[in-house]
Amino acid sequence: MRYAKFFIVLLVAGFAGFSSYSFAVEEVKVPDAMTVIHSRKSVRNFTGQSVDKKMLEKIVRAGMAAPTAVNMQPWAFVIVIDRAALDSLASVLPYAKMLDKAGAAIVVCAIPAKAYGGSKEFAVIDSTCASENILLAAEALGLGALWTAVYPDEGRMDAVREKLGIPEDVIPLNVIPVGYPTGVDKPKDKYNSENIKWERWQP
Amino acid sequence: MRYAKFFIVLLVAGFAGFSSYSFAVEEVKVPDAMTVIHSRKSVRNFTGQSVDKKMLEKIVRAGMAAPTAVNMQPWAFVIVIDRAALDSLASVLPYAKMLDKAGAAIVVCAIPAKAYGGSKEFAVIDSTCASENILLAAEALGLGALWTAVYPDEGRMDAVREKLGIPEDVIPLNVIPVGYPTGVDKPKDKYNSENIKWERWQP
Repeated sequence: MRYAKFFIVLLVAGFAGFSSYSFAVEEVKVPDAMTVIHSRKSVRNFTGQSVDKKMLEKIVRAGMAAPTAVNMQPWAFVIVIDRAALDSLASVLPYAKMLDKAGAAIVVCAIPAKAYGGSKEFAVIDSTCASENILLAAEALGLGALWTAVYPDEGRMDAVREKLGIPEDVIPLNVIPVGYPTGVDKPKDKYNSENIKWERWQP
Repeated sequence: MRYAKFFIVLLVAGFAGFSSYSFAVEEVKVPDAMTVIHSRKSVRNFTGQSVDKKMLEKIVRAGMAAPTAVNMQPWAFVIVIDRAALDSLASVLPYAKMLDKAGAAIVVCAIPAKAYGGSKEFAVIDSTCASENILLAAEALGLGALWTAVYPDEGRMDAVREKLGIPEDVIPLNVIPVGYPTGVDKPKDKYNSENIKWERWQP
Protein backbone atom coordinates (compact mmCIF):
# COMPACT_ATOMS: atom_id res chain seq x y z
CA MET A 1 0.00 0.00 0.00
CA ARG A 2 2.85 2.39 0.76
CA TYR A 3 4.40 1.46 -2.57
CA ALA A 4 1.11 2.03 -4.36
CA LYS A 5 0.81 5.60 -3.08
CA PHE A 6 4.36 6.37 -4.06
CA PHE A 7 3.68 4.83 -7.40
CA ILE A 8 0.78 7.22 -8.07
CA VAL A 9 2.80 10.26 -7.02
CA LEU A 10 5.60 9.27 -9.37
CA LEU A 11 3.17 8.49 -12.17
CA VAL A 12 1.76 12.01 -11.92
CA ALA A 13 5.24 13.55 -11.71
CA GLY A 14 6.32 11.51 -14.72
CA PHE A 15 3.38 12.63 -16.84
CA ALA A 16 3.70 16.24 -15.79
CA GLY A 17 7.36 16.11 -16.71
CA PHE A 18 6.66 14.40 -19.99
CA SER A 19 4.00 16.85 -21.11
CA SER A 20 6.16 19.86 -20.25
CA TYR A 21 8.93 18.22 -22.21
CA SER A 22 6.79 18.04 -25.34
CA PHE A 23 5.88 21.67 -24.74
CA ALA A 24 9.56 22.57 -24.57
CA VAL A 25 10.23 20.80 -27.85
CA GLU A 26 7.38 22.78 -29.48
CA GLU A 27 8.82 26.03 -28.11
CA VAL A 28 12.38 25.52 -29.28
CA LYS A 29 11.36 25.08 -32.91
CA VAL A 30 12.01 28.82 -33.11
CA PRO A 31 15.03 29.53 -30.89
CA ASP A 32 14.90 32.27 -28.29
CA ALA A 33 15.45 35.83 -29.48
CA MET A 34 18.91 36.36 -27.98
CA THR A 35 20.16 33.13 -29.56
CA VAL A 36 18.78 34.17 -32.94
CA ILE A 37 20.32 37.65 -32.71
CA HIS A 38 23.72 36.12 -31.99
CA SER A 39 23.51 33.27 -34.49
CA ARG A 40 22.32 35.39 -37.41
CA LYS A 41 25.02 35.52 -40.07
CA SER A 42 25.37 36.58 -43.67
CA VAL A 43 24.57 33.38 -45.53
CA ARG A 44 26.19 33.28 -48.97
CA ASN A 45 25.96 29.53 -49.58
CA PHE A 46 22.54 28.07 -50.27
CA THR A 47 21.48 24.54 -51.15
CA GLY A 48 19.31 25.55 -54.10
CA GLN A 49 16.11 24.33 -52.38
CA SER A 50 13.05 26.50 -53.00
CA VAL A 51 11.40 28.39 -50.15
CA ASP A 52 7.71 28.08 -49.38
CA LYS A 53 5.60 31.22 -50.09
CA LYS A 54 3.99 31.00 -46.63
CA MET A 55 7.46 31.08 -45.09
CA LEU A 56 8.39 34.16 -47.12
CA GLU A 57 5.19 35.90 -46.05
CA LYS A 58 6.02 35.09 -42.43
CA ILE A 59 9.47 36.65 -42.87
CA VAL A 60 8.09 39.81 -44.50
CA ARG A 61 5.40 40.00 -41.83
CA ALA A 62 8.24 40.16 -39.28
CA GLY A 63 9.67 43.03 -41.33
CA MET A 64 6.44 44.96 -41.00
CA ALA A 65 6.60 44.61 -37.20
CA ALA A 66 9.57 47.02 -37.14
CA PRO A 67 9.18 50.52 -35.69
CA THR A 68 8.80 53.50 -38.03
CA ALA A 69 8.98 57.23 -37.35
CA VAL A 70 5.46 58.38 -36.35
CA ASN A 71 4.19 54.96 -37.48
CA MET A 72 4.26 55.90 -41.17
CA GLN A 73 5.39 52.45 -42.45
CA PRO A 74 7.08 53.94 -45.53
CA TRP A 75 7.93 50.65 -47.16
CA ALA A 76 7.06 47.88 -49.58
CA PHE A 77 8.53 44.42 -50.12
CA VAL A 78 9.03 42.84 -53.51
CA ILE A 79 9.38 39.06 -53.16
CA VAL A 80 10.94 37.34 -56.15
CA ILE A 81 10.77 33.54 -56.45
CA ASP A 82 10.76 33.01 -60.20
CA ARG A 83 14.05 31.36 -61.18
CA ALA A 84 14.55 33.41 -64.34
CA ALA A 85 13.80 36.63 -62.49
CA LEU A 86 16.32 35.75 -59.74
CA ASP A 87 18.99 35.03 -62.37
CA SER A 88 18.14 38.25 -64.16
CA LEU A 89 18.57 40.21 -60.89
CA ALA A 90 21.89 38.49 -60.24
CA SER A 91 23.10 39.45 -63.72
CA VAL A 92 23.07 43.16 -62.78
CA LEU A 93 24.23 42.82 -59.15
CA PRO A 94 27.88 41.81 -58.85
CA TYR A 95 27.56 41.16 -55.10
CA ALA A 96 24.38 39.09 -55.29
CA LYS A 97 25.68 36.16 -57.34
CA MET A 98 24.55 33.79 -54.57
CA LEU A 99 21.01 34.34 -55.88
CA ASP A 100 21.75 31.41 -58.20
CA LYS A 101 21.23 28.99 -55.30
CA ALA A 102 18.82 31.08 -53.19
CA GLY A 103 15.13 30.18 -53.13
CA ALA A 104 13.97 33.79 -53.19
CA ALA A 105 14.95 37.43 -52.98
CA ILE A 106 13.26 40.05 -50.86
CA VAL A 107 13.78 43.60 -52.09
CA VAL A 108 13.02 46.09 -49.32
CA CYS A 109 11.80 49.35 -50.80
CA ALA A 110 11.90 52.67 -48.92
CA ILE A 111 9.22 55.16 -49.93
CA PRO A 112 10.16 58.74 -48.97
CA ALA A 113 6.71 60.07 -50.01
CA LYS A 114 5.14 57.89 -47.28
CA ALA A 115 7.73 58.68 -44.59
CA TYR A 116 7.33 61.17 -41.77
CA GLY A 117 7.87 64.65 -43.25
CA GLY A 118 8.50 63.07 -46.67
CA SER A 119 12.00 62.36 -45.35
CA LYS A 120 14.31 60.13 -47.33
CA GLU A 121 16.34 59.59 -44.15
CA PHE A 122 13.36 58.23 -42.20
CA ALA A 123 12.26 56.10 -45.16
CA VAL A 124 15.72 54.51 -45.25
CA ILE A 125 15.99 54.10 -41.46
CA ASP A 126 12.50 52.60 -41.10
CA SER A 127 13.09 50.21 -44.00
CA THR A 128 16.45 49.25 -42.50
CA CYS A 129 14.73 48.25 -39.24
CA ALA A 130 12.34 46.13 -41.31
CA SER A 131 15.31 44.59 -43.13
CA GLU A 132 17.02 43.62 -39.87
CA ASN A 133 13.79 41.96 -38.70
CA ILE A 134 13.71 40.07 -42.01
CA LEU A 135 17.29 38.85 -41.56
CA LEU A 136 16.49 37.71 -38.00
CA ALA A 137 13.21 36.05 -39.00
CA ALA A 138 15.00 34.06 -41.71
CA GLU A 139 17.52 32.84 -39.13
CA ALA A 140 14.70 32.11 -36.66
CA LEU A 141 12.94 29.90 -39.21
CA GLY A 142 16.06 27.93 -40.09
CA LEU A 143 16.76 29.78 -43.31
CA GLY A 144 19.71 31.89 -44.33
CA ALA A 145 19.81 35.42 -45.74
CA LEU A 146 22.06 38.40 -46.22
CA TRP A 147 21.85 42.09 -47.02
CA THR A 148 23.31 42.86 -50.42
CA ALA A 149 23.44 46.63 -50.76
CA VAL A 150 21.61 48.46 -53.51
CA TYR A 151 21.19 51.93 -51.93
CA PRO A 152 23.08 54.31 -52.00
CA ASP A 153 24.62 53.18 -55.33
CA GLU A 154 22.68 55.02 -58.06
CA GLY A 155 23.65 52.50 -60.75
CA ARG A 156 22.44 49.52 -58.74
CA MET A 157 19.25 51.30 -57.72
CA ASP A 158 18.43 52.02 -61.35
CA ALA A 159 19.23 48.45 -62.39
CA VAL A 160 16.92 46.98 -59.72
CA ARG A 161 14.20 49.52 -60.52
CA GLU A 162 14.39 48.54 -64.17
CA LYS A 163 14.30 44.77 -63.52
CA LEU A 164 11.36 44.94 -61.11
CA GLY A 165 9.39 47.93 -62.40
CA ILE A 166 10.02 49.98 -59.27
CA PRO A 167 9.13 53.68 -59.66
CA GLU A 168 11.80 56.38 -59.76
CA ASP A 169 10.70 57.90 -56.41
CA VAL A 170 10.99 54.58 -54.54
CA ILE A 171 14.37 53.48 -53.15
CA PRO A 172 15.30 49.80 -53.58
CA LEU A 173 17.34 49.63 -50.36
CA ASN A 174 18.74 46.12 -50.73
CA VAL A 175 18.31 42.71 -52.27
CA ILE A 176 18.09 40.01 -49.60
CA PRO A 177 18.66 36.51 -50.99
CA VAL A 178 16.81 33.95 -48.84
CA GLY A 179 17.32 30.21 -48.95
CA TYR A 180 18.37 27.07 -47.18
CA PRO A 181 21.93 27.40 -45.85
CA THR A 182 24.51 24.73 -46.63
CA GLY A 183 25.92 25.32 -43.14
CA VAL A 184 29.34 26.67 -44.08
CA ASP A 185 28.56 30.28 -43.11
CA LYS A 186 29.10 30.99 -39.40
CA PRO A 187 28.28 33.99 -37.21
CA LYS A 188 31.09 36.39 -36.30
CA ASP A 189 31.70 37.53 -32.74
CA LYS A 190 31.79 41.29 -33.16
CA TYR A 191 31.71 42.23 -29.50
CA ASN A 192 34.20 44.98 -28.74
CA SER A 193 34.15 46.52 -25.27
CA GLU A 194 35.79 49.70 -26.64
CA ASN A 195 32.58 50.46 -28.49
CA ILE A 196 30.76 50.87 -25.18
CA LYS A 197 31.11 54.30 -23.57
CA TRP A 198 29.66 54.68 -20.08
CA GLU A 199 27.93 57.99 -19.33
CA ARG A 200 29.92 60.06 -21.89
CA TRP A 201 31.89 59.70 -25.09
CA GLN A 202 35.42 58.50 -24.47
CA PRO A 203 37.96 58.32 -27.27
CA MET B 1 9.79 -6.96 -5.97
CA ARG B 2 7.60 -6.18 -8.97
CA TYR B 3 6.61 -2.94 -7.27
CA ALA B 4 10.24 -2.12 -6.60
CA LYS B 5 11.22 -2.43 -10.28
CA PHE B 6 8.30 -0.33 -11.39
CA PHE B 7 9.20 2.14 -8.71
CA ILE B 8 12.70 2.56 -10.09
CA VAL B 9 11.44 3.00 -13.65
CA LEU B 10 9.02 5.69 -12.52
CA LEU B 11 11.64 7.33 -10.38
CA VAL B 12 13.87 7.69 -13.42
CA ALA B 13 10.97 8.92 -15.58
CA GLY B 14 10.01 11.37 -12.89
CA PHE B 15 13.51 12.78 -12.60
CA ALA B 16 13.95 12.94 -16.35
CA GLY B 17 10.63 14.74 -16.64
CA PHE B 18 11.45 17.03 -13.79
CA SER B 19 14.84 18.02 -15.15
CA SER B 20 13.45 18.69 -18.62
CA TYR B 21 10.81 20.81 -16.97
CA SER B 22 13.44 22.99 -15.32
CA PHE B 23 15.17 23.14 -18.68
CA ALA B 24 11.97 24.34 -20.32
CA VAL B 25 11.52 27.06 -17.69
CA GLU B 26 15.11 28.21 -18.30
CA GLU B 27 14.50 28.29 -22.05
CA VAL B 28 11.28 30.27 -22.02
CA LYS B 29 12.74 33.07 -19.91
CA VAL B 30 13.68 34.64 -23.23
CA PRO B 31 10.74 34.12 -25.62
CA ASP B 32 11.27 32.80 -29.12
CA ALA B 33 12.49 35.25 -31.75
CA MET B 34 9.26 35.51 -33.76
CA THR B 35 7.28 36.25 -30.61
CA VAL B 36 9.76 38.94 -29.59
CA ILE B 37 9.72 40.54 -33.06
CA HIS B 38 5.93 40.75 -32.94
CA SER B 39 5.62 41.82 -29.31
CA ARG B 40 8.24 44.59 -29.49
CA LYS B 41 6.58 47.94 -29.04
CA SER B 42 7.59 51.53 -28.39
CA VAL B 43 7.49 51.70 -24.61
CA ARG B 44 6.88 55.23 -23.35
CA ASN B 45 5.76 54.37 -19.83
CA PHE B 46 8.38 53.13 -17.40
CA THR B 47 8.14 52.26 -13.72
CA GLY B 48 11.20 54.25 -12.68
CA GLN B 49 13.12 51.13 -11.63
CA SER B 50 16.82 51.18 -12.44
CA VAL B 51 18.32 48.75 -14.94
CA ASP B 52 21.27 46.53 -14.10
CA LYS B 53 24.54 47.36 -15.91
CA LYS B 54 25.01 43.71 -16.91
CA MET B 55 21.59 43.78 -18.56
CA LEU B 56 22.49 46.93 -20.49
CA GLU B 57 25.73 45.34 -21.66
CA LYS B 58 23.78 42.32 -22.83
CA ILE B 59 21.48 44.57 -24.83
CA VAL B 60 24.33 46.50 -26.44
CA ARG B 61 26.13 43.24 -27.15
CA ALA B 62 23.04 42.24 -29.16
CA GLY B 63 23.42 45.54 -31.02
CA MET B 64 26.96 44.63 -32.01
CA ALA B 65 25.73 41.35 -33.51
CA ALA B 66 24.04 43.28 -36.33
CA PRO B 67 25.38 43.08 -39.87
CA THR B 68 27.47 45.95 -41.26
CA ALA B 69 28.62 46.72 -44.79
CA VAL B 70 31.93 44.87 -45.36
CA ASN B 71 31.98 44.16 -41.59
CA MET B 72 33.22 47.67 -40.73
CA GLN B 73 31.19 48.02 -37.48
CA PRO B 74 31.06 51.82 -37.78
CA TRP B 75 29.43 52.41 -34.42
CA ALA B 76 29.72 53.19 -30.73
CA PHE B 77 27.19 53.04 -27.91
CA VAL B 78 26.97 55.60 -25.13
CA ILE B 79 25.08 54.15 -22.16
CA VAL B 80 23.77 56.73 -19.71
CA ILE B 81 22.50 55.62 -16.30
CA ASP B 82 23.23 58.63 -14.11
CA ARG B 83 19.91 60.18 -13.09
CA ALA B 84 21.07 63.79 -13.50
CA ALA B 85 22.55 63.01 -16.92
CA LEU B 86 19.30 61.37 -18.06
CA ASP B 87 17.29 64.41 -16.92
CA SER B 88 19.76 66.70 -18.62
CA LEU B 89 19.35 64.77 -21.91
CA ALA B 90 15.56 64.92 -21.57
CA SER B 91 15.75 68.69 -21.10
CA VAL B 92 17.00 69.15 -24.69
CA LEU B 93 14.94 66.40 -26.35
CA PRO B 94 11.24 67.24 -26.55
CA TYR B 95 10.31 63.70 -27.62
CA ALA B 96 12.35 61.91 -24.98
CA LYS B 97 10.57 63.15 -21.87
CA MET B 98 9.93 59.53 -20.82
CA LEU B 99 13.61 59.44 -19.81
CA ASP B 100 12.38 60.71 -16.43
CA LYS B 101 11.14 57.20 -15.56
CA ALA B 102 13.59 55.18 -17.69
CA GLY B 103 16.48 53.39 -16.04
CA ALA B 104 18.95 54.18 -18.80
CA ALA B 105 19.47 55.64 -22.24
CA ILE B 106 21.47 54.06 -25.02
CA VAL B 107 22.72 56.52 -27.63
CA VAL B 108 23.67 54.70 -30.83
CA CYS B 109 26.42 56.61 -32.62
CA ALA B 110 27.15 56.18 -36.33
CA ILE B 111 30.76 56.84 -37.34
CA PRO B 112 31.10 57.62 -41.07
CA ALA B 113 34.92 57.59 -40.86
CA LYS B 114 34.77 53.90 -39.85
CA ALA B 115 32.11 52.90 -42.41
CA TYR B 116 32.75 51.17 -45.74
CA GLY B 117 34.01 53.83 -48.15
CA GLY B 118 33.68 56.46 -45.40
CA SER B 119 29.99 56.46 -46.27
CA LYS B 120 27.56 58.33 -44.02
CA GLU B 121 24.76 56.23 -45.54
CA PHE B 122 26.37 52.92 -44.53
CA ALA B 123 27.25 54.29 -41.08
CA VAL B 124 23.58 55.18 -40.55
CA ILE B 125 22.23 51.93 -42.00
CA ASP B 126 24.63 49.72 -40.02
CA SER B 127 23.89 51.60 -36.78
CA THR B 128 20.18 51.33 -37.51
CA CYS B 129 20.48 47.52 -37.72
CA ALA B 130 22.27 47.62 -34.35
CA SER B 131 19.50 49.82 -32.94
CA GLU B 132 16.79 47.40 -34.05
CA ASN B 133 18.69 44.55 -32.36
CA ILE B 134 18.85 46.70 -29.21
CA LEU B 135 15.09 47.30 -29.26
CA LEU B 136 14.45 43.58 -29.73
CA ALA B 137 16.94 42.56 -27.03
CA ALA B 138 15.27 44.91 -24.54
CA GLU B 139 11.91 43.28 -25.32
CA ALA B 140 13.48 39.81 -25.11
CA LEU B 141 14.81 40.54 -21.62
CA GLY B 142 11.49 41.84 -20.31
CA LEU B 143 12.43 45.51 -20.59
CA GLY B 144 10.91 48.26 -22.67
CA ALA B 145 12.55 50.70 -25.05
CA LEU B 146 11.86 53.00 -27.95
CA TRP B 147 13.72 54.86 -30.69
CA THR B 148 13.58 58.60 -30.15
CA ALA B 149 15.02 60.24 -33.24
CA VAL B 150 18.07 62.48 -33.08
CA TYR B 151 19.41 62.16 -36.66
CA PRO B 152 18.70 63.78 -39.13
CA ASP B 153 17.71 66.83 -37.03
CA GLU B 154 20.82 69.05 -36.86
CA GLY B 155 19.65 70.84 -33.73
CA ARG B 156 19.05 67.62 -31.80
CA MET B 157 22.32 66.11 -33.00
CA ASP B 158 24.24 69.13 -31.74
CA ALA B 159 22.39 69.11 -28.42
CA VAL B 160 23.18 65.43 -27.80
CA ARG B 161 26.79 65.90 -28.91
CA GLU B 162 27.14 68.74 -26.46
CA LYS B 163 25.57 66.86 -23.52
CA LEU B 164 27.65 63.71 -24.03
CA GLY B 165 30.88 65.05 -25.49
CA ILE B 166 30.36 63.33 -28.84
CA PRO B 167 32.71 64.58 -31.60
CA GLU B 168 31.43 66.63 -34.52
CA ASP B 169 32.15 63.88 -37.07
CA VAL B 170 30.12 61.26 -35.18
CA ILE B 171 26.35 61.05 -35.71
CA PRO B 172 24.19 60.50 -32.62
CA LEU B 173 21.51 58.51 -34.46
CA ASN B 174 18.98 58.19 -31.64
CA VAL B 175 18.40 58.15 -27.91
CA ILE B 176 16.86 54.88 -26.78
CA PRO B 177 15.32 55.09 -23.29
CA VAL B 178 15.41 51.66 -21.63
CA GLY B 179 13.51 50.68 -18.53
CA TYR B 180 10.89 48.50 -16.91
CA PRO B 181 7.54 48.89 -18.70
CA THR B 182 4.39 49.66 -16.73
CA GLY B 183 2.50 47.44 -19.18
CA VAL B 184 0.25 50.07 -20.75
CA ASP B 185 2.13 50.15 -24.08
CA LYS B 186 1.01 47.45 -26.52
CA PRO B 187 2.36 46.28 -29.88
CA LYS B 188 0.59 47.43 -33.07
CA ASP B 189 -0.38 45.01 -35.81
CA LYS B 190 1.14 46.70 -38.86
CA TYR B 191 0.67 43.86 -41.31
CA ASN B 192 -0.65 45.13 -44.62
CA SER B 193 -0.87 42.69 -47.52
CA GLU B 194 -0.73 45.59 -50.00
CA ASN B 195 2.88 46.15 -49.00
CA ILE B 196 3.84 42.76 -50.42
CA LYS B 197 4.47 42.69 -54.17
CA TRP B 198 5.04 39.27 -55.72
CA GLU B 199 7.67 39.10 -58.45
CA ARG B 200 7.37 42.76 -59.55
CA TRP B 201 6.30 46.15 -58.27
CA GLN B 202 2.54 46.59 -58.41
CA PRO B 203 0.94 49.93 -57.62
